Amino acid sequence: MADSPPVPGIVGAGQLARMTYQAGISLGLTVRLLAGSPDESAARIARDVVVGAPTSAPDLAAFVAGCDVLTFDHELVDAGHLAALERAGHCLRPGADTVALAQNKRRQRVELSEHGFPVPPFRVPADLATIERFAAEHGWPVVLKAVQGGYDGRGVWVVNDAATAAALVRDLPGGAGNLLVEAWVPIEREVAALVARRPGGQTASYPVVETVQVDGICHEVLAPAPIEPGLTAEAQRLGLAIAEAIGVTGILAVELFVAGGRLLVNELATRPHNSGHYSIEGCVTSQFENHLRAVLDWPLGDPSLVVPAVATVNVLGRSTFDPRVFLPQALEVPGVHVHLYDKPARAGRKLGHVTATGHDPAEARARARRAADLLAAEGGA
Amino acid sequence: MADSPPVPGIVGAGQLARMTYQAGISLGLTVRLLAGSPDESAARIARDVVVGAPTSAPDLAAFVAGCDVLTFDHELVDAGHLAALERAGHCLRPGADTVALAQNKRRQRVELSEHGFPVPPFRVPADLATIERFAAEHGWPVVLKAVQGGYDGRGVWVVNDAATAAALVRDLPGGAGNLLVEAWVPIEREVAALVARRPGGQTASYPVVETVQVDGICHEVLAPAPIEPGLTAEAQRLGLAIAEAIGVTGILAVELFVAGGRLLVNELATRPHNSGHYSIEGCVTSQFENHLRAVLDWPLGDPSLVVPAVATVNVLGRSTFDPRVFLPQALEVPGVHVHLYDKPARAGRKLGHVTATGHDPAEARARARRAADLLAAEGGA
Repeated sequence: MADSPPVPGIVGAGQLARMTYQAGISLGLTVRLLAGSPDESAARIARDVVVGAPTSAPDLAAFVAGCDVLTFDHELVDAGHLAALERAGHCLRPGADTVALAQNKRRQRVELSEHGFPVPPFRVPADLATIERFAAEHGWPVVLKAVQGGYDGRGVWVVNDAATAAALVRDLPGGAGNLLVEAWVPIEREVAALVARRPGGQTASYPVVETVQVDGICHEVLAPAPIEPGLTAEAQRLGLAIAEAIGVTGILAVELFVAGGRLLVNELATRPHNSGHYSIEGCVTSQFENHLRAVLDWPLGDPSLVVPAVATVNVLGRSTFDPRVFLPQALEVPGVHVHLYDKPARAGRKLGHVTATGHDPAEARARARRAADLLAAEGGA
Repeated sequence: MADSPPVPGIVGAGQLARMTYQAGISLGLTVRLLAGSPDESAARIARDVVVGAPTSAPDLAAFVAGCDVLTFDHELVDAGHLAALERAGHCLRPGADTVALAQNKRRQRVELSEHGFPVPPFRVPADLATIERFAAEHGWPVVLKAVQGGYDGRGVWVVNDAATAAALVRDLPGGAGNLLVEAWVPIEREVAALVARRPGGQTASYPVVETVQVDGICHEVLAPAPIEPGLTAEAQRLGLAIAEAIGVTGILAVELFVAGGRLLVNELATRPHNSGHYSIEGCVTSQFENHLRAVLDWPLGDPSLVVPAVATVNVLGRSTFDPRVFLPQALEVPGVHVHLYDKPARAGRKLGHVTATGHDPAEARARARRAADLLAAEGGA
């Protein structure tokens, strides 16, 4: 390293960038941010913030000029712009092609399937005739998914019949060309495997967690996942194998369904992920620190749990009510770690999370829930 | 709390402010800083930095106008200015009088002694005749201490005879009026008791730690201190009693000597302290988060250890060699937490610290040392 430390730049300034920035402080780093506005979560606490659009080629080019390595808070970028930055010699981690994969559910399905990874039965493109044929083969309901842009339950529809499918295809911008059809599988549980990977291939594999989803939004994360050891080992193997197959640099989160006693890959995220927030207090090295270490090509830290059980409960907005009103009450709950993202409240928005560690999973979960419920109470819980 | 979170302001922008800022991010806060320059450790990562002199009344007044509560990274302020701010209605935590006590070793000795807390025999003022009479009574060597401005071993002299004392008194700016004379006590160990206290009196008492000093500079902190339970209990009792006696708000660090099997108070610091850095990974709630919670009058977090043993080793500059050159090597050491302050290197300067947690105190200490030695290696270790 030269006289000054390397400068990682993050495209995006949401809570993932905020917590990555926080982890960088320990390593002596000042992470740069490309923010849509100076009021975004991470921009509110960072020193070097460039305001610009992540979808603008000139804004990206101006931003990357001041960074040694570029990484991402979200996938809402133009993969073509990223590829151009790489051709111009800039260092992107993950690379443009990996980001393109992460932002496109159709490509994910096709490539993971081609690699032999277990995915639900699917078909593309999902025009109406294809959907009907697919449903005749696999049965109703089927799952329709937007190929790009969906998150937190948006862009995913469980469809019970042909008429509903027809209405959806008709109303969707981009129509069937932006859809993928999948077999509906009876999900017993959702779990996630998190892996950090350096450019040269060194990896660190986090404990497998259960992600408790409500309406497609992650409400709780439980570490370790209460599943049988064979499934845990298989989830870790899948995480590592997919990280290697797609050549990711940084954090890869693999969301998995447990269905019929086996694992199916749901989605990938090639950045720090909500399912890994528990690692801040729950693991020796957090996903945020390991993301930075990976993208800077520094040795990765130990991802093991420091306690037997960790529970993270998201603080989800119910309205525009500010969860900070009840922060002092939430801090009364013994031993909880409150993380607030300093974002304006809105129904369904992730405004923060609470982590509790302990020896007993149920007890830790109850404490984290109590504090998170207080924060989202809107008038008292 | 209103629509926006409270704004704590810190006077000073060193590593204590840096780590307090980092803790504030979790709580949804953007801490404001008064920095001597935009290049100071905390200023390099903070969004709201006001550049000004902490010794300037107008700079302080301008700064505090944008803060809901004022707290401190160091004691190098003018207590008169602080008292004026309090009279003008600003909220200072700790208060002006507590800061005045923290910055004045003579006042500390006199007041602690009047409260009945155990301190080494001392006398003030330390003019030459007093020093000689004191030495006749207690024996040479004696310890001379600058009343104000000393830290990290500066401003403390062990003096073996009257001639050396005379030379020191003659050469010291301010002369004997700026000195205090103390009996030299054969120190077996140094320990520290750390307490967080809210304005209303709620306290959280951290585990007692051993501070391993070399030439008056803290090199290592070991938690819990390897001393007998009776001494640990007594150190905690002293920490809590002194916090109450001086009415501190925020963190109080009480540095103690173990001498002749009993405890003597050495010095107080009324802010987060080097002896508490281990709490970031070693305790449920770090000293930095609890300092913020205390000065904001929010419920305090649990100060208990999360592991049986924690060791912190300071990264002390040997020259102008930048410790970051060997950061990747240091990160190879398993399970260590590296904290770098992003300060220019200089011999004897605290540039960072490394914390390791574990079940075996000696093993954790060895790991933390290995990484800290690598960082300070200057050409390889």
